[in-house]
Amino acid sequence: MRAVYLSRGQVSVEEVPPPQRPPGFALIRTLAAGICNTDLELQRGYYQFEGIPGHEFVGEVLESDSKELIGCRVAGEINLSCGHCDYCILGSPRHCENRSVLGIVKHPGAFAELLTLPDKNLHIVPSEIPDEEAVFVEPLAAARAILDQVVMNIGEQVAVLGDGKLGLLVAQALHVHGARVTVFGHHSNKLSIVATRGITVSKSYPHSYQRFQYVVECTGSAAGLSTAIQMAEPRGVIIMKSTVHEKVTIDMAPVVVNEIALLGSRCGRFEPAIQLLRDRKIDVRPMLSAEFPLEQAPAAFAEAARKGVLKVILRNV
Amino acid sequence: MRAVYLSRGQVSVEEVPPPQRPPGFALIRTLAAGICNTDLELQRGYYQFEGIPGHEFVGEVLESDSKELIGCRVAGEINLSCGHCDYCILGSPRHCENRSVLGIVKHPGAFAELLTLPDKNLHIVPSEIPDEEAVFVEPLAAARAILDQVVMNIGEQVAVLGDGKLGLLVAQALHVHGARVTVFGHHSNKLSIVATRGITVSKSYPHSYQRFQYVVECTGSAAGLSTAIQMAEPRGVIIMKSTVHEKVTIDMAPVVVNEIALLGSRCGRFEPAIQLLRDRKIDVRPMLSAEFPLEQAPAAFAEAARKGVLKVILRNV
Repeated sequence: MRAVYLSRGQVSVEEVPPPQRPPGFALIRTLAAGICNTDLELQRGYYQFEGIPGHEFVGEVLESDSKELIGCRVAGEINLSCGHCDYCILGSPRHCENRSVLGIVKHPGAFAELLTLPDKNLHIVPSEIPDEEAVFVEPLAAARAILDQVVMNIGEQVAVLGDGKLGLLVAQALHVHGARVTVFGHHSNKLSIVATRGITVSKSYPHSYQRFQYVVECTGSAAGLSTAIQMAEPRGVIIMKSTVHEKVTIDMAPVVVNEIALLGSRCGRFEPAIQLLRDRKIDVRPMLSAEFPLEQAPAAFAEAARKGVLKVILRNV
Repeated sequence: MRAVYLSRGQVSVEEVPPPQRPPGFALIRTLAAGICNTDLELQRGYYQFEGIPGHEFVGEVLESDSKELIGCRVAGEINLSCGHCDYCILGSPRHCENRSVLGIVKHPGAFAELLTLPDKNLHIVPSEIPDEEAVFVEPLAAARAILDQVVMNIGEQVAVLGDGKLGLLVAQALHVHGARVTVFGHHSNKLSIVATRGITVSKSYPHSYQRFQYVVECTGSAAGLSTAIQMAEPRGVIIMKSTVHEKVTIDMAPVVVNEIALLGSRCGRFEPAIQLLRDRKIDVRPMLSAEFPLEQAPAAFAEAARKGVLKVILRNV
């Protein structure tokens, strides 16, 4: 089969053997897959990744032991859990200590004609959600994971730092939940996507006296966390969504004095994300920047890395 | 009156005018006061402090508008709140945005013959608690503040990093609460104080596979937080008790990936701390290293800064 191969920072398209389907797994034909910042970081050498990337996808089930899945259009949770470690047993399979992660850790990804995932990881995508929007299920699930971690009251003041893909999804998910969201970013075109949904946007950081009960750090930069600490209320909560792959240097004294909580946040549940997209509570279409056929993956990666570009999609055509 | 005066890192004992008692305040004669690490940090220039330090004290009320307080032996909460800002109104006076802090921020401290504090800050100290133990009310209240911030189940595995005064108080408070506490430290003499109470102690950090649901950072060092992040379970909680007055450089990626919560923690309620001392649930006597008369404050500060020394007390004799 044809697959995107990442090795030492080089993106190429190769002919590779198709994946074997173990028992309990489905064989899936990729329909479309989105390029995530994590993919760009894998390209930069994060996790010493070598292999087939891609973890935001929609595909069609070709083979499965669960006959009712065959022919279905699915999105898939990216963490492959062992099912018998403490975390799996206690209900946190996303923290399984033996996990592999689709297209990231020890499991070939979705930038290929075919992929495999356990049946239990799959969620049927309703027909109302076209392929190019279904690739947002995974990142939207991650964005709204915040709402499974904290009790955020309706009307709560929330600052979202960063107007990249993640920031725009977080802002919309929290806005739909009922929070009063302000997005701080530097790009008028990106900010306008959420401004048209009624979300407050700002290109400059607030005055020192304006503090937020919740600050969501989505900048992907080392400086973002320090800014978040300055913007949080005493006893406020900072949610750290973006993974920064360099050490950050911060003054932690205000965190102690103001008794701030910093909360790491990664993946989320797919069900509510699918509902939000199906009901068009969140419109991801303005975030689609470009589409490429799988064969043109090198050009697609280059486009995704270009400043100002949001979601770039690969289609298996 | 005689008072300890801190200026540009120099500790001296001076004759200064006695404090004026505003309405609603009590005039208190200091009986004993403890030297805290914060006092040593004020000496090193933190907060650009100049004035009378001291915030852990027990004293006798000489004058007050509340007649029933006069003659009582009291400990006092250190945050002087305005009573009308948002934080005061919403029940967080310790985060009052106009606050002064006894012996730390804009309010002369307890290393003096006399001090003033609002009546509402005062707590009567039961006769069962002698002066030298009553000076521990404030730091013990801070130590057990953790139990007002998180729901810590009985039997929960907790690591306390650091065997200084704060670490030893935190470990005892959580142990009495019912947590299974392990203290990690470098000083056999300090560790033995809690080991005799049935708390597990360790002079080396655990193997990488041993993780804790709660890690309390009490080292006061920049390296402590990184160690804590390595020791926390996925979805675990790190409580940051010690204020580090230098920027810390840390890898925050594991915080996001493992969805760890970092929680700043500062002052706490006096009532439960007084109860713990009155009922001898916590024995602070082994933590008393030395006593000096107020007049010998320079020697007392030098002793408190010496490696291996725990609590040093000044007595107003």
